[in-house]
Amino acid sequence: MKKFTLLGTGLIGQFYTMSLHSQRRQDLVYNVFSTHREKAKDFAAKWKIPRFTDNMQEAIEDPETDVVIVALPNYLHKEAILMACKAGKAVLCTKPLALNGDEAREILEEVEKAGIFHGYLEDLAYTPKTLKAIEIVKSGSCGRILWTKSREAHPGPHSAWFWDKKLSGGGALVDLGCHCIEIGRSFIGKDVKPLEVMCWADTQVKPIDAEDHAIALIKYETGAISQIEVSWNFRGGMDLRDEVSGTEGTIRLDHWLRTGFEVFTSGATDKYVSEKAESDAGWLFPVGDEVHSLGYPDMFTDMLDSLENNMEPKETFYDGYVVNAIIDACYKSAATKQWEPVDLFEWRGKEGLHSGVDQVDYDEKHFLIKKEKMPDGKTKLMLKEKLTGKIVQKVID
Amino acid sequence: MKKFTLLGTGLIGQFYTMSLHSQRRQDLVYNVFSTHREKAKDFAAKWKIPRFTDNMQEAIEDPETDVVIVALPNYLHKEAILMACKAGKAVLCTKPLALNGDEAREILEEVEKAGIFHGYLEDLAYTPKTLKAIEIVKSGSCGRILWTKSREAHPGPHSAWFWDKKLSGGGALVDLGCHCIEIGRSFIGKDVKPLEVMCWADTQVKPIDAEDHAIALIKYETGAISQIEVSWNFRGGMDLRDEVSGTEGTIRLDHWLRTGFEVFTSGATDKYVSEKAESDAGWLFPVGDEVHSLGYPDMFTDMLDSLENNMEPKETFYDGYVVNAIIDACYKSAATKQWEPVDLFEWRGKEGLHSGVDQVDYDEKHFLIKKEKMPDGKTKLMLKEKLTGKIVQKVID
Amino acid sequence: MKKFTLLGTGLIGQFYTMSLHSQRRQDLVYNVFSTHREKAKDFAAKWKIPRFTDNMQEAIEDPETDVVIVALPNYLHKEAILMACKAGKAVLCTKPLALNGDEAREILEEVEKAGIFHGYLEDLAYTPKTLKAIEIVKSGSCGRILWTKSREAHPGPHSAWFWDKKLSGGGALVDLGCHCIEIGRSFIGKDVKPLEVMCWADTQVKPIDAEDHAIALIKYETGAISQIEVSWNFRGGMDLRDEVSGTEGTIRLDHWLRTGFEVFTSGATDKYVSEKAESDAGWLFPVGDEVHSLGYPDMFTDMLDSLENNMEPKETFYDGYVVNAIIDACYKSAATKQWEPVDLFEWRGKEGLHSGVDQVDYDEKHFLIKKEKMPDGKTKLMLKEKLTGKIVQKVID
Amino acid sequence: MKKFTLLGTGLIGQFYTMSLHSQRRQDLVYNVFSTHREKAKDFAAKWKIPRFTDNMQEAIEDPETDVVIVALPNYLHKEAILMACKAGKAVLCTKPLALNGDEAREILEEVEKAGIFHGYLEDLAYTPKTLKAIEIVKSGSCGRILWTKSREAHPGPHSAWFWDKKLSGGGALVDLGCHCIEIGRSFIGKDVKPLEVMCWADTQVKPIDAEDHAIALIKYETGAISQIEVSWNFRGGMDLRDEVSGTEGTIRLDHWLRTGFEVFTSGATDKYVSEKAESDAGWLFPVGDEVHSLGYPDMFTDMLDSLENNMEPKETFYDGYVVNAIIDACYKSAATKQWEPVDLFEWRGKEGLHSGVDQVDYDEKHFLIKKEKMPDGKTKLMLKEKLTGKIVQKVID
Repeated sequence: MKKFTLLGTGLIGQFYTMSLHSQRRQDLVYNVFSTHREKAKDFAAKWKIPRFTDNMQEAIEDPETDVVIVALPNYLHKEAILMACKAGKAVLCTKPLALNGDEAREILEEVEKAGIFHGYLEDLAYTPKTLKAIEIVKSGSCGRILWTKSREAHPGPHSAWFWDKKLSGGGALVDLGCHCIEIGRSFIGKDVKPLEVMCWADTQVKPIDAEDHAIALIKYETGAISQIEVSWNFRGGMDLRDEVSGTEGTIRLDHWLRTGFEVFTSGATDKYVSEKAESDAGWLFPVGDEVHSLGYPDMFTDMLDSLENNMEPKETFYDGYVVNAIIDACYKSAATKQWEPVDLFEWRGKEGLHSGVDQVDYDEKHFLIKKEKMPDGKTKLMLKEKLTGKIVQKVID
Repeated sequence: MKKFTLLGTGLIGQFYTMSLHSQRRQDLVYNVFSTHREKAKDFAAKWKIPRFTDNMQEAIEDPETDVVIVALPNYLHKEAILMACKAGKAVLCTKPLALNGDEAREILEEVEKAGIFHGYLEDLAYTPKTLKAIEIVKSGSCGRILWTKSREAHPGPHSAWFWDKKLSGGGALVDLGCHCIEIGRSFIGKDVKPLEVMCWADTQVKPIDAEDHAIALIKYETGAISQIEVSWNFRGGMDLRDEVSGTEGTIRLDHWLRTGFEVFTSGATDKYVSEKAESDAGWLFPVGDEVHSLGYPDMFTDMLDSLENNMEPKETFYDGYVVNAIIDACYKSAATKQWEPVDLFEWRGKEGLHSGVDQVDYDEKHFLIKKEKMPDGKTKLMLKEKLTGKIVQKVID
Repeated sequence: MKKFTLLGTGLIGQFYTMSLHSQRRQDLVYNVFSTHREKAKDFAAKWKIPRFTDNMQEAIEDPETDVVIVALPNYLHKEAILMACKAGKAVLCTKPLALNGDEAREILEEVEKAGIFHGYLEDLAYTPKTLKAIEIVKSGSCGRILWTKSREAHPGPHSAWFWDKKLSGGGALVDLGCHCIEIGRSFIGKDVKPLEVMCWADTQVKPIDAEDHAIALIKYETGAISQIEVSWNFRGGMDLRDEVSGTEGTIRLDHWLRTGFEVFTSGATDKYVSEKAESDAGWLFPVGDEVHSLGYPDMFTDMLDSLENNMEPKETFYDGYVVNAIIDACYKSAATKQWEPVDLFEWRGKEGLHSGVDQVDYDEKHFLIKKEKMPDGKTKLMLKEKLTGKIVQKVID
Repeated sequence: MKKFTLLGTGLIGQFYTMSLHSQRRQDLVYNVFSTHREKAKDFAAKWKIPRFTDNMQEAIEDPETDVVIVALPNYLHKEAILMACKAGKAVLCTKPLALNGDEAREILEEVEKAGIFHGYLEDLAYTPKTLKAIEIVKSGSCGRILWTKSREAHPGPHSAWFWDKKLSGGGALVDLGCHCIEIGRSFIGKDVKPLEVMCWADTQVKPIDAEDHAIALIKYETGAISQIEVSWNFRGGMDLRDEVSGTEGTIRLDHWLRTGFEVFTSGATDKYVSEKAESDAGWLFPVGDEVHSLGYPDMFTDMLDSLENNMEPKETFYDGYVVNAIIDACYKSAATKQWEPVDLFEWRGKEGLHSGVDQVDYDEKHFLIKKEKMPDGKTKLMLKEKLTGKIVQKVID
């Protein structure tokens, strides 16, 4: 059983607390901090948290708590984590880790110097569907991974600081892209090196300085491409989908809008059916258990089991750093309009992985391109002559 | 924190233990019983359960445990529950409660006489989708409930005793229909009286005495119809869907086959992608978190929170009794080929509820049948003349 | 190339004409009749039809036309068809054929006596999905058919006469059930005899004499059950789904609400996105090509190709008669609250078909109940001892 | 009624003929050409085509035919079209128009010089879902279009010449990308100028010179981005999906894999359930009417109605030219690894369209960023101070 200091009482702090305090879990938010004392007090009352404070240092140094959870706006992560380093206390930080790669690197070096446990709260790498899909990919059922797509789009965030890139580090790319990047890494292999990035980012709708829509391609050393699509301009709720394409299989995940839960209502009552639905009448698509669908319970289970067993959790600050470095490359590419390398001060995964085609011999003289069973029961082969490169087709029984 | 005695090490015992021992929950299976000592031992080892035994009475009377979970074949429920009554210990029993209504009534009367806490482990009334859908229905978003459909179908159960109706009480109706009946009650209102039942049941495929396929309609006092469809002959995995139709809305739930998780695999590996899939290649539809999708975690949370707070859980043995009584009426109807009344020794819900049409006045002379907005922006009305009963249509701007 | 006399200018007449006059088809509506001359005139102008009239006999006897299409309210079918018999002209009649089985039999006997070509315009037996699904069933891919479900539900019809059972023959059962019954027959085999019927029908919402909601089970000689669900109380658009369950396979069809076409709109414009959607904002589910999805083009192709080739179309007035006879049995069952036989004056299909279980030998001493591949690669068998009836399980490598 | 000369007897020639000769259409393939006389003969016999030949010029100049359909491999389009120019005959050409933009321009200039009717057979711009979706977009229901995605992926083409880029002009980009580009143009507006392109293309799996996988972003003058995803490495059938995102709405289309038709089969028969399914057991997803779902009937209807009415069809050779020019830019970008301009010798659409944010005033001092109804019924506003650029939030009743 672990006790937490929670820093921050916004939406994400609520989701964390809801996840930890439900389903008879043994762990407990014990002290909550907000710069607004009143908010801290209300939050503590609502969630039955024994202590609250508007003094961040005091919250972090609370001798009763084992772990600090940083659920603050992005520009405050570093300050909070450095305090946790000083206090020698395990720290979990919400996504993204930092405003940019340099800051993320600094944070990473500090927690490693301090020798404290650190977990990166990338919940979408922990959704039940994602966990099972990663297992399927690892079993080889999809073959070699060629492409992943991760899409997160909604009509924009709920707090003012998100919209100000000085406080958040950027727009939809920082807010949503950090999820998508880490989901892609999880499928392609977190030990596979990201090499370079091509990104388009634009401010299409909202009167802000940051981008409200972006698309990026991240190329990995195996040749796999991880595609990310993020938008604050999407209409219709929250679009949260992933796809994986491999030489032997395909995966499609929908986490939010089409999960086997469909409701039509004439709007007879004023009550909200579903909170992120943009509508309270017509066809609505609620999610059964929101925090579970978003991965929070499984994420905290991994974090705390790892902490108790002196192991690394699946997501560490190193992962947070890699994500920030990839986002940096995205912004650079959006500006230079060309592919930009991912600049990592240190790579902790595999090196020198092979990319490209594995040629399959059909016979001495031919490579196999494609084999296809036809309606009449025969098999059609597409072959390439090794000598001439000529492509020929052949039908066999 | 509660400690359990678990009776039974079959599939359902595994699901219960998996649910209780995951996600850092505070409660614990502490003693496990099987008639086969070896099975109890292996089960205890696998799930890190401190004690095991092949003596049921000893397991039930273990002074360290607070709650007995009955996860035994149907014909053993009564014996186990009566022992728990004697031990004065809280008892949770898997579905169905008993072999038939009479036995269920006897069990109910015994636990009430003994004054012990009793919970009916109807997990499908607790799936996250079902809980949220019930909330939506209670909010009025669907209006007055007219019809529910609950469908559970798969290729048949995994243990021999299920197939022998002397040991199980029946076939697919008992095994799967108990779920469907309680889901229907949950949407229509558990305080609404079930009046009568029409049921078709047949043995279409399997060489057994019990039915392998059945369909029933249950009529409630409000006029609502609860339709249930159960089969052990279904091909393609497990079909687990519910629908609700009301005067103001519609709900559709898919718990298993189409939940936003789709995988295609060429069958490149021998590994199982999904256990109930009937196939290990082609398009497969795994579920992210099986126990969660089936409602186990939320069910145990309700049971144990209720126990600690001296409250009734959502599902009690009285509910189990009502379900058994409805199944009895189904079997009777299947034999007599006509509607049969549901015979309840005692009704604890509402009485004298209204059924039938609520006539809506359009004006002094007409009732409103239907109002429809047309493509040209006008409104078309279907009206009934109060005096003559004649139906007329009218278009207004 | 054929020329038509069209009787009736309502919604169904429009759908027929739209289907025949689109996609550069060679056939043509040449004369249109309505009791309201003005309507006939407008309809002719809209669809470029050379002639119009308010004289039905004149329309039918038009020497320029080859085929009469009856698209009139149900109570007028007989009169129109008898006129066509007199004129010796091929006749196609919309569904249902007649107000009841007796009238349908009379119509059938008259057209057969007159020796004219007759086609029953049951479009939903001709939707592209249904045609392909029937082909799949006939190929044996689903094995022996055990159950079909056909569901048609929407918020009620658009013309006053539908709501008056003296003019229509009944309520939702007549209006929608006729479709569902014929879809079930198409999957089970139109040469398989319907034996008996169990039906629930109620007036739950609308202030009318006819039923606005009904469910029926039709038992066929093979033991197959055809389930039909019809409602005029459904909210959310038009629910048009079929399912088939066989010993080797399963089919699910959605013709309208979930066909791979999804739109969200904030409601920025006043324009209709989709006509049967009950809403012009939020998530809407239009259909690409409505008449095609509903089977009209393929239906007319079969009718006219059959006429030209002197063959019977897939759907004749005999089929219309069988459907009316089944509906009669439904109403009887709804009143007597028990299964009622289907009363057919003549059965033109197969007789003496086998129903029930095909026992499969596992070895000399056992029947096979179920065979299942387990996650560990072993095979689990459920067996029944021939001598004792005892059920045992066995695991083999 | 029109008569056709069909050049080519491959898969696409079959699809065209199947579309034209079904559903009692009035037009007719009258002469068919193949370089292999035997193939022409068999094709003519199969489809009841009066004439066949292995002399292309003779086929084109057949005085009985009105229109030439070019259904030949890409490298033969130009030769055939120039012959049609000489013969002064209307010509329809399959996609892509040419091997590259220069060849396409030459073709376009020749047909315009010859003054013949020309139609570009881009069937996927004519699917019933696409046609209705374009109508929805044009009605304004989705607001200003920000992004489109078109995805076409399958395990690779069926004829050898496709795999040889000298004969086809390229790989998946040419084969599938031409569809996706034109679908994007159709939603964004065919009169909106494509400005520049960013493309990734790689040969990941197949031992060929051309790319087997590519992703491109095409930027239009309005700022809209059209994303295309094409692959010959996809597993699981044919993935054919489009998405549209606008300021007021969202559209999702699935043309092939999830259209409301689902079949599970144990594989009891050897028969093919669905041809492009990569599997003949397990869950399969057939399409009801393949040619209709792919847009062929609606495409030929537009082409022939336009021809008869002396109008331009929706898709002309100019459109084919624009698509080829965009593909050229894609290849260039894949090589230079940066955005490349789309080089058009002549732009026939609108010029000088506005791109970027439309700032919405909230009051004198603020722009509106976002407005959101909250669960408690209040409204939350995100505002930007005009003077300072500071972002503030405000909650009103």
